[in-house]
Amino acid sequence: MIDRDALRDFYDDYYNVLDDVRLEEWPAFFTEDCIYRIIPRENFEAGYTLSTIYAESRGMLIDRVMGLTRSQMYAPRYYRRFPGPLRIVAREGEAVRVRHNLLVVQTLIDKKTEIVLSAVCHDLLVTDGARPRLRERIVVFDSEMLPNSLIYPA
Amino acid sequence: MIDRDALRDFYDDYYNVLDDVRLEEWPAFFTEDCIYRIIPRENFEAGYTLSTIYAESRGMLIDRVMGLTRSQMYAPRYYRRFPGPLRIVAREGEAVRVRHNLLVVQTLIDKKTEIVLSAVCHDLLVTDGARPRLRERIVVFDSEMLPNSLIYPA
Amino acid sequence: MIDRDALRDFYDDYYNVLDDVRLEEWPAFFTEDCIYRIIPRENFEAGYTLSTIYAESRGMLIDRVMGLTRSQMYAPRYYRRFPGPLRIVAREGEAVRVRHNLLVVQTLIDKKTEIVLSAVCHDLLVTDGARPRLRERIVVFDSEMLPNSLIYPA
Repeated sequence: MIDRDALRDFYDDYYNVLDDVRLEEWPAFFTEDCIYRIIPRENFEAGYTLSTIYAESRGMLIDRVMGLTRSQMYAPRYYRRFPGPLRIVAREGEAVRVRHNLLVVQTLIDKKTEIVLSAVCHDLLVTDGARPRLRERIVVFDSEMLPNSLIYPA
Repeated sequence: MIDRDALRDFYDDYYNVLDDVRLEEWPAFFTEDCIYRIIPRENFEAGYTLSTIYAESRGMLIDRVMGLTRSQMYAPRYYRRFPGPLRIVAREGEAVRVRHNLLVVQTLIDKKTEIVLSAVCHDLLVTDGARPRLRERIVVFDSEMLPNSLIYPA
Repeated sequence: MIDRDALRDFYDDYYNVLDDVRLEEWPAFFTEDCIYRIIPRENFEAGYTLSTIYAESRGMLIDRVMGLTRSQMYAPRYYRRFPGPLRIVAREGEAVRVRHNLLVVQTLIDKKTEIVLSAVCHDLLVTDGARPRLRERIVVFDSEMLPNSLIYPA
């Protein structure tokens, strides 16, 4: 069973890896078959599944990371992620549904830091290979359109 | 006695209900007789009680919610609340004084997410009907005037 | 040994003192010999130690505070600090290395609240005089230059 301490450590690692831009380590937080989606709140609440970003396997996440690291088409920027309190919503056998708010801020060189994402994450974690992994992560963001500036994963 | 786990669960529920705009559930987080205030930091530190928003019973909170849900005079927007760490300041018999920072961000359609409130909450919780409720909640915000854009409760 | 509860209480106090602008209490959070640095991420990641703000003793922190409280050369403003989850990175004997993100927001009178600092703090805590204190605090901020507006300590 994934207890509260294990959850805390999991998300500490998850966000730490992303904040440090160690993108190649990111797909390993997911199971081989997984759902990763970034979806506007309106679509989500209306029951639509049309997502801005969508992946259904670890392989697709790896592709995404390789696309990001190979192309250098973006102005240099830093992201930093501020997760809200972790809420355990349900336990389904050995799996656990976790929800938490997420604020992502972005700093471009010589620019003021600004908010790039305000969202709630609907996650489903399972134990896989002796460690917790995400079988599902749905990031529901408070906007109609995802800002172009969201380049790196949430 | 309201322990740390109960506090965490209480605030998880409280902010979750507000983030989800389930406003009709909000007044039940307060005792029948209660104090709910939103007050600028300058007034609070000077010892004035002049508040921007004021209610002294659950009934007044219900009225406030009904006013909000009936009138549709505001541009659609989403709020999301990011509470800081919960600090237990004092225990007074079965009651507990809790303090925590609160950042509220707002997203209007097609606009960038922005900060709508930076505040510290001075709360007093009691056990009432087998669950914790707020007997007092004073939201002290870092500004002289409350932005007009603060429409929904904090 | 400084356990998780002691860490939580330490940072609750630390940020509370700063949010309340009780600056004269701030140096006591550090050991007599200490390192306090605010450094841009680029420098830090390149291994440079050139810092924007630097102190190597509690006495220098006291001087800094006295400079701030004596001169009234700044427009009045409020800071509020939102630390992310505390991560224990390593234990070195009785000392503990702690890392956490930090968002500092600033409110000037009649202005909108804005982000003034997005950073990660690399701290080293030791037990000193029966309480935890910072022997080292390195605040690595996501920008090339520290905004002029960062006047008060982080």
